Amino acid sequence: MGNTFGQLFRITTFGESHGGGVGVIIDGCPPRLEITETEIQFDLDRRRPGQSKITTPRREADICEILSGVFEGKTLGTPIAILVRNQDARSQDYDEMSLKFRPSHADATYEAKYGIRNWQGGGRSSARETIGRVAAGAIAKKILKQVANVEIVGYVKRIKNLEGVIDPNTVTLEQVESNIVRCPDTEMAEKMIDLIDQTRRDQDSIGGVVECVARYVPKGLGEPVFDKLEADLAKAVMSLPASKGFEIGSGFDGTLLTGSEHNDEFYLDDNGEIRTVTNRSGGIQGGISNGENIIIRVAFKPTATIGKEQKTVTLNKEETTLAAKGRHDPCVLPRAVPMVEAMVALVLCDHLLRFRGQCGVLE
Amino acid sequence: MGNTFGQLFRITTFGESHGGGVGVIIDGCPPRLEITETEIQFDLDRRRPGQSKITTPRREADICEILSGVFEGKTLGTPIAILVRNQDARSQDYDEMSLKFRPSHADATYEAKYGIRNWQGGGRSSARETIGRVAAGAIAKKILKQVANVEIVGYVKRIKNLEGVIDPNTVTLEQVESNIVRCPDTEMAEKMIDLIDQTRRDQDSIGGVVECVARYVPKGLGEPVFDKLEADLAKAVMSLPASKGFEIGSGFDGTLLTGSEHNDEFYLDDNGEIRTVTNRSGGIQGGISNGENIIIRVAFKPTATIGKEQKTVTLNKEETTLAAKGRHDPCVLPRAVPMVEAMVALVLCDHLLRFRGQCGVLE
Amino acid sequence: MGNTFGQLFRITTFGESHGGGVGVIIDGCPPRLEITETEIQFDLDRRRPGQSKITTPRREADICEILSGVFEGKTLGTPIAILVRNQDARSQDYDEMSLKFRPSHADATYEAKYGIRNWQGGGRSSARETIGRVAAGAIAKKILKQVANVEIVGYVKRIKNLEGVIDPNTVTLEQVESNIVRCPDTEMAEKMIDLIDQTRRDQDSIGGVVECVARYVPKGLGEPVFDKLEADLAKAVMSLPASKGFEIGSGFDGTLLTGSEHNDEFYLDDNGEIRTVTNRSGGIQGGISNGENIIIRVAFKPTATIGKEQKTVTLNKEETTLAAKGRHDPCVLPRAVPMVEAMVALVLCDHLLRFRGQCGVLE
Amino acid sequence: MGNTFGQLFRITTFGESHGGGVGVIIDGCPPRLEITETEIQFDLDRRRPGQSKITTPRREADICEILSGVFEGKTLGTPIAILVRNQDARSQDYDEMSLKFRPSHADATYEAKYGIRNWQGGGRSSARETIGRVAAGAIAKKILKQVANVEIVGYVKRIKNLEGVIDPNTVTLEQVESNIVRCPDTEMAEKMIDLIDQTRRDQDSIGGVVECVARYVPKGLGEPVFDKLEADLAKAVMSLPASKGFEIGSGFDGTLLTGSEHNDEFYLDDNGEIRTVTNRSGGIQGGISNGENIIIRVAFKPTATIGKEQKTVTLNKEETTLAAKGRHDPCVLPRAVPMVEAMVALVLCDHLLRFRGQCGVLE
Repeated sequence: MGNTFGQLFRITTFGESHGGGVGVIIDGCPPRLEITETEIQFDLDRRRPGQSKITTPRREADICEILSGVFEGKTLGTPIAILVRNQDARSQDYDEMSLKFRPSHADATYEAKYGIRNWQGGGRSSARETIGRVAAGAIAKKILKQVANVEIVGYVKRIKNLEGVIDPNTVTLEQVESNIVRCPDTEMAEKMIDLIDQTRRDQDSIGGVVECVARYVPKGLGEPVFDKLEADLAKAVMSLPASKGFEIGSGFDGTLLTGSEHNDEFYLDDNGEIRTVTNRSGGIQGGISNGENIIIRVAFKPTATIGKEQKTVTLNKEETTLAAKGRHDPCVLPRAVPMVEAMVALVLCDHLLRFRGQCGVLE
Repeated sequence: MGNTFGQLFRITTFGESHGGGVGVIIDGCPPRLEITETEIQFDLDRRRPGQSKITTPRREADICEILSGVFEGKTLGTPIAILVRNQDARSQDYDEMSLKFRPSHADATYEAKYGIRNWQGGGRSSARETIGRVAAGAIAKKILKQVANVEIVGYVKRIKNLEGVIDPNTVTLEQVESNIVRCPDTEMAEKMIDLIDQTRRDQDSIGGVVECVARYVPKGLGEPVFDKLEADLAKAVMSLPASKGFEIGSGFDGTLLTGSEHNDEFYLDDNGEIRTVTNRSGGIQGGISNGENIIIRVAFKPTATIGKEQKTVTLNKEETTLAAKGRHDPCVLPRAVPMVEAMVALVLCDHLLRFRGQCGVLE
Repeated sequence: MGNTFGQLFRITTFGESHGGGVGVIIDGCPPRLEITETEIQFDLDRRRPGQSKITTPRREADICEILSGVFEGKTLGTPIAILVRNQDARSQDYDEMSLKFRPSHADATYEAKYGIRNWQGGGRSSARETIGRVAAGAIAKKILKQVANVEIVGYVKRIKNLEGVIDPNTVTLEQVESNIVRCPDTEMAEKMIDLIDQTRRDQDSIGGVVECVARYVPKGLGEPVFDKLEADLAKAVMSLPASKGFEIGSGFDGTLLTGSEHNDEFYLDDNGEIRTVTNRSGGIQGGISNGENIIIRVAFKPTATIGKEQKTVTLNKEETTLAAKGRHDPCVLPRAVPMVEAMVALVLCDHLLRFRGQCGVLE
Repeated sequence: MGNTFGQLFRITTFGESHGGGVGVIIDGCPPRLEITETEIQFDLDRRRPGQSKITTPRREADICEILSGVFEGKTLGTPIAILVRNQDARSQDYDEMSLKFRPSHADATYEAKYGIRNWQGGGRSSARETIGRVAAGAIAKKILKQVANVEIVGYVKRIKNLEGVIDPNTVTLEQVESNIVRCPDTEMAEKMIDLIDQTRRDQDSIGGVVECVARYVPKGLGEPVFDKLEADLAKAVMSLPASKGFEIGSGFDGTLLTGSEHNDEFYLDDNGEIRTVTNRSGGIQGGISNGENIIIRVAFKPTATIGKEQKTVTLNKEETTLAAKGRHDPCVLPRAVPMVEAMVALVLCDHLLRFRGQCGVLE
């Protein structure tokens, strides 16, 4: 029962790579929010396969249908159900995988846990599952924007060893979307695209790091001690396919500094607001947002499914080799950007409602 | 309401640094488990302040009392309540902090969120809160040991730039406990102790990395898509005070490899079990344990509270400086080791019960 | 966010009376359960409108589609999504209700809570929402049957003042389904049908009592102190539309007895099993099933929407009258029977998994 | 793990009848609420044993200690822990019950579920567990009073066949507390007291009905479809020891009316507010509060533990008889009144916060 996320703004996703479709139920959405399928489609299009030469060629329009919860263009406060039908399912590509476990993929563990799996396209473990997250994230973003003008911008920070130079405090969605790899350092972006393209031709895959910033987040979000904001953000992005690491603010590098070097000293800005001079905390202190920009980084491993031949075993416990057919991303990073943004938006929106629930009632 | 953790094996902690005490309620514990306060005390002693020259000199015996849920030495299946009274509370040390916000601490954000805070010793944001986690973790460890012989060993991997060489596949609790910094690389441990001691004398602080391994974890734990095992582990440790980053298996470094280099090829071991040649996955694939060793790393920043003078502001919005009094750890890492172990144990135990609940019923 | 029910076997429903459709996501279902749409359809057909002359004439085939979670006829352990499209939606019948609040219906309270509502056919407050519950209940029933041979039989006990004589210990589904009012006392059933028919012609409505028995429920289900089995059953059925009361075992009448009259004395049956001579407890003691038949009763009020003219007010706060058009049930009881069964099944199935999770792991 | 109740205002209780103590953790309490142990003690004193000649003579002062979450007289927003130590535990009274199962008590089912039980005084199944609920309820009441002037008044409506005449719209706490049976119909109260006293002398027990009214509840509380306000109220009170039935508004008797008789017609009051002429709905329509008085009734069976000899079986599966020693209530009703009030307060407070969380954020 691990398919529900969030406490007050709560989503439940469903669906496998092949079959009837994938989607999401959003429960707890504030009523009277104006929302259209077009707004949701914008982020779905950023996520969908076949969007560029460096993503999987699988063709899915990923057109979403709102089944419930919206009436005359506004949310009702009741569950919003969104469905995306599966279309371009070439199941025959997966016949071999019905028997052979792909190394470092979910095939073997799903089989071990459930004693059964939908081996077509990875079934539930397919990145296709994230459609529901991205659709729900689009709604969360709109609420955050409307209530507090929150901006969430994700981008590719690094592909393998190619790292862009990007200022999280000023980067814009337009800059991110200006190229197909979604790295706003346009010079480095070209090198990244070349590397991904070369890797694709090599039948191999690569990984990298997505960075995401949330600006204008109100102070006070996050609930110690277990639902600290960074803890919920970590869980959110570590539940994405292929993620292997999470950092907030100074992250692992911050451990090389002393406290006097690392601490963010306070000052009063021109409006008399308490601010920090530096932002090594990454916008969260003691598990609660402090009004500075929230900055996180997520490590994505190289895609597990590759065309190169690898040693593996079969369902029937025989050793063999596998050179995967099917259509796969040589690098998940460009499509992971809207996924990370969605997960950040879902966490912030949930905590915005929770904050209002607990701390707003005695005002 | 962020003070409850877990779905089936569920803990709720309470308490502030100063006041009546701190503790935990454990709900959902399997019945008839033999457990004593002595077993719980073992891990509490590894966590408690004043245990060595490199930890805070605050003196707390941290003796736990089981209030309920255990009868004639065995768990009843009903809630286990554990209480530790506060003793050595020198509130006067904190008078200054009732007005001045410590940089990079939780003072300002608690004030922003709740409009009130217990400023004595950090109140709820104190690491003292983790007593409840460690006590509950001791019980979780015992269940895991009894059901599946699971071993959980945490240790200090790095202090600032001093990194130990440790084999997670063989490291033992005895090796970890052989020195006060809890780094099983004994040569490096001495250097670490010297560095912490020097930092303490400098009125400054340092951070580092804790690594933790869980061995003999049964296959099948973890619930995609949101409660993937690595996602719940990430949330668990990122909810600990001072944590800034999380990695599993190859982590951030894994992003520098290609898929063909990174993937863990499968083979059959002598017992016909499906195993992986390498373990870059860190024991989890597709969000589900695969039977290999689970290996995670957690970055802890340098302690925020330091004796050196820093710029800050007051509750009344005046700029000032603060040189913190009180008794604080120059480095949280040695005491963070049992905390990380506890959080890992809580996640694994919860998922063990959940696995049994969903997948065991039709057997 | 009140649209999710259950802890381990967890359902989330969505959909309004008019619009894209209604449905359910079932999360946590045990894997490898054989299930077909036909099995689910059986209970949906018992619930659907237009099934007889004493139900609403609205025509909905209510054909269900399994969107995910089932592969080659077996559950995958991943979320099962079931969708039923809306068809016969005559929205024009509801034009008047877009302005006028139906007395004792949900119109005014939805408007008060959300500031918006889908006034077509009651929107989310329509009994049409229960399709998702009944579909999920069909799966829960099958699990209970397969694991422990549990039988759940609901039936109409009373319509207005017409009460049937039925033995809960022996009543069968076939007896219940032998007439359109679902009262196994066939003689009384005819009188009930006549009364409902007369009430329909009078443009009025009536209510009554549904009784439900669960036989062969394993001992040990239910989790004190808040999730006692009777507490979860009460919540389950009190969340059904039009329910006004709940009883277990002796219920309200039991309060007229003394303890010595009311207590269920124990004895040992021929197999040496601990049994009770009487069953005033209704199969649950101390919140935990005791192996005897679980027997509950649910009071359903007369349908709120009636053709007779009534005083009411409008959205714009003007006093007026309303004689409801549209197609409505003169009595919800016959269709409520599968709803009550479904809710009982969902509670028992959830607690079966929870019991296995907590108490099965140390076996 | 059934010992936590509520979503945003969430309580977790712990403790057995004998042992270290009983208590509660309240998580999610709004910050800056003024609260004292004296205010909590008021309701605890209404619940405690030995308060009058018609309750159990067990002597427990039930003095509560706030361990955390309150600072300088105000709530911190962090978990509030409240502990009541056990004192007058005469375990020897229960020696016989370590082997013999009390009919209609929880002894046998706890043993069946957990394979172990604390047989002293009923352990966790003791009504002593409700101390935590009543303490938390006192805080919930204060929040409701402060935010919306909500009044919650419970009282004994009926003892066995002795029914009082009480107007829920005007009854006051003072009237309820004017006699030891807590029935505001003072004439009937005397008869009730005599009947309970006689029953006590007969070594027997009796039950009855508690009615509870909540006045000035804001419109909009309750979350369809599963967390309807009446569904959560039903669960809340059906989780109390000895409860066998629940009604809201017209309840079971309402099923004897036609829709045109039962419906609550709307009108506009002098302030232009939408009101209902009658209140058969009991203050809730469609699962959401409508601003009218919420009125519920709870059936409590006669106390299971009686001095009269009864047939039973032993842990070792031998048939025997039991005439219970120990000190028990001949009738739980007088002490159940504050318990019912507490559960109603907890539900309303939770839904008040939830309402604010979902529906307040876009205001």
